[in-house]
Amino acid sequence: MSDFAVTISPRFYETDALGHINNASITAWFEVVRVRYLESLENSDFSAAKDWILASIQVDFVAETFYGNDVVAKITAANVGNSSLTIFCEMFQQGKLTVKGKAVLVYMDSAEKTSTRIPDKLREQIAAL
Amino acid sequence: MSDFAVTISPRFYETDALGHINNASITAWFEVVRVRYLESLENSDFSAAKDWILASIQVDFVAETFYGNDVVAKITAANVGNSSLTIFCEMFQQGKLTVKGKAVLVYMDSAEKTSTRIPDKLREQIAAL
Amino acid sequence: MSDFAVTISPRFYETDALGHINNASITAWFEVVRVRYLESLENSDFSAAKDWILASIQVDFVAETFYGNDVVAKITAANVGNSSLTIFCEMFQQGKLTVKGKAVLVYMDSAEKTSTRIPDKLREQIAAL
Amino acid sequence: MSDFAVTISPRFYETDALGHINNASITAWFEVVRVRYLESLENSDFSAAKDWILASIQVDFVAETFYGNDVVAKITAANVGNSSLTIFCEMFQQGKLTVKGKAVLVYMDSAEKTSTRIPDKLREQIAAL
Repeated sequence: MSDFAVTISPRFYETDALGHINNASITAWFEVVRVRYLESLENSDFSAAKDWILASIQVDFVAETFYGNDVVAKITAANVGNSSLTIFCEMFQQGKLTVKGKAVLVYMDSAEKTSTRIPDKLREQIAAL
Repeated sequence: MSDFAVTISPRFYETDALGHINNASITAWFEVVRVRYLESLENSDFSAAKDWILASIQVDFVAETFYGNDVVAKITAANVGNSSLTIFCEMFQQGKLTVKGKAVLVYMDSAEKTSTRIPDKLREQIAAL
Repeated sequence: MSDFAVTISPRFYETDALGHINNASITAWFEVVRVRYLESLENSDFSAAKDWILASIQVDFVAETFYGNDVVAKITAANVGNSSLTIFCEMFQQGKLTVKGKAVLVYMDSAEKTSTRIPDKLREQIAAL
Repeated sequence: MSDFAVTISPRFYETDALGHINNASITAWFEVVRVRYLESLENSDFSAAKDWILASIQVDFVAETFYGNDVVAKITAANVGNSSLTIFCEMFQQGKLTVKGKAVLVYMDSAEKTSTRIPDKLREQIAAL
């Protein structure tokens, strides 16, 4: 896939007393890029945020992130299971890898409130990106 | 009124690179004490968060707040208008005044989605506290 | 002055259970535009965030802000006192005024840790913007 | 080990438009309990937050967390390596398991800014808790 990328400008309130961006803010950024990616798949048949439940996240803090330079957050891979979608993310600041993330989402039948098979059309969109 | 108070333990991620608690976190704490206060008025006839719209806030940062010691956030006064409620808050850390806040809320008729007169029962509860 | 503006894309985690952007997130956005504005004044003689202390903020929530459309946050005026700077901000979503903010900052002598007169060079920059 | 536990009252601004507590807030809570745990080990020879670097976190969102009831966040295990410490956390709301977390921290020599062997005294404290 070609990378899906979002540029994030660190905010001063996202720093902490150690002088860098706090890990909780970085994990929140992972939601930003993840939701944008899901929205990019969206069409009239499905709306992103309500169709997916976040099952788990893993974040590796490879290097510190600092205030003052933009961060590029990329979706580097998206693996489709039956009802699950695993999204891989990498973040870079000044060209340096700072964060590696992995999220597992489950596709929901909003009427039944149960997990359900990811529709073919959506599978194609994920594969195409 | 006797003060209504909530104790808040500053969280590390609420600090910023200046080494103190960031002002955005403190403003968020003001929501915590305000909502708890409104919930304390709540009974079967009204549910707090949905009945009030926040019209404005003012926060004076009297002194820095630091990580490592609890903050006591007090509602010091609540003035009832026709459909509006003005809530005054003070925060203290180690006995020192750090923050003074003022919020204006408007009571809503949730069915009509318009502001409406604060019910008498609720006025009594506010006066009694 | 010509307006200084920052575009903010609301993030999903900045919504709350009432379905709109939470007031604490909006107040945090006010910091984003304020700090960017101060940084735009910055030169080799002074670094923005450490030279200013936030004395107070006032935020009027004129209309709800929603997820899904960008917000334009503008600095509409900046009034210089002796050691204080009052910054006025307005936020718009889809052309509609949603937020009016006002912040009072105090210029600090970082060595002495006391408030000090805003330097002439900085006054000129503020006036010019 | 006997569990180390922190009680967290969900805050209204920690909810999102899906009506539950947002995953970014829950990940931030994990920092709260983790830092408190590290501080409980602290003595005059070491100060918690500055001696540890967060290398990675994993969070499984087992069930939704809601506003309105306290969450109990427990450290259920802590495994010491040479310079690394793996902390396991579980969160419960109304007795129901909602979150399972795992964090890997690395002990730092703050002067040298490199990872270093966790001191014996600290190992004993971790084992004893």
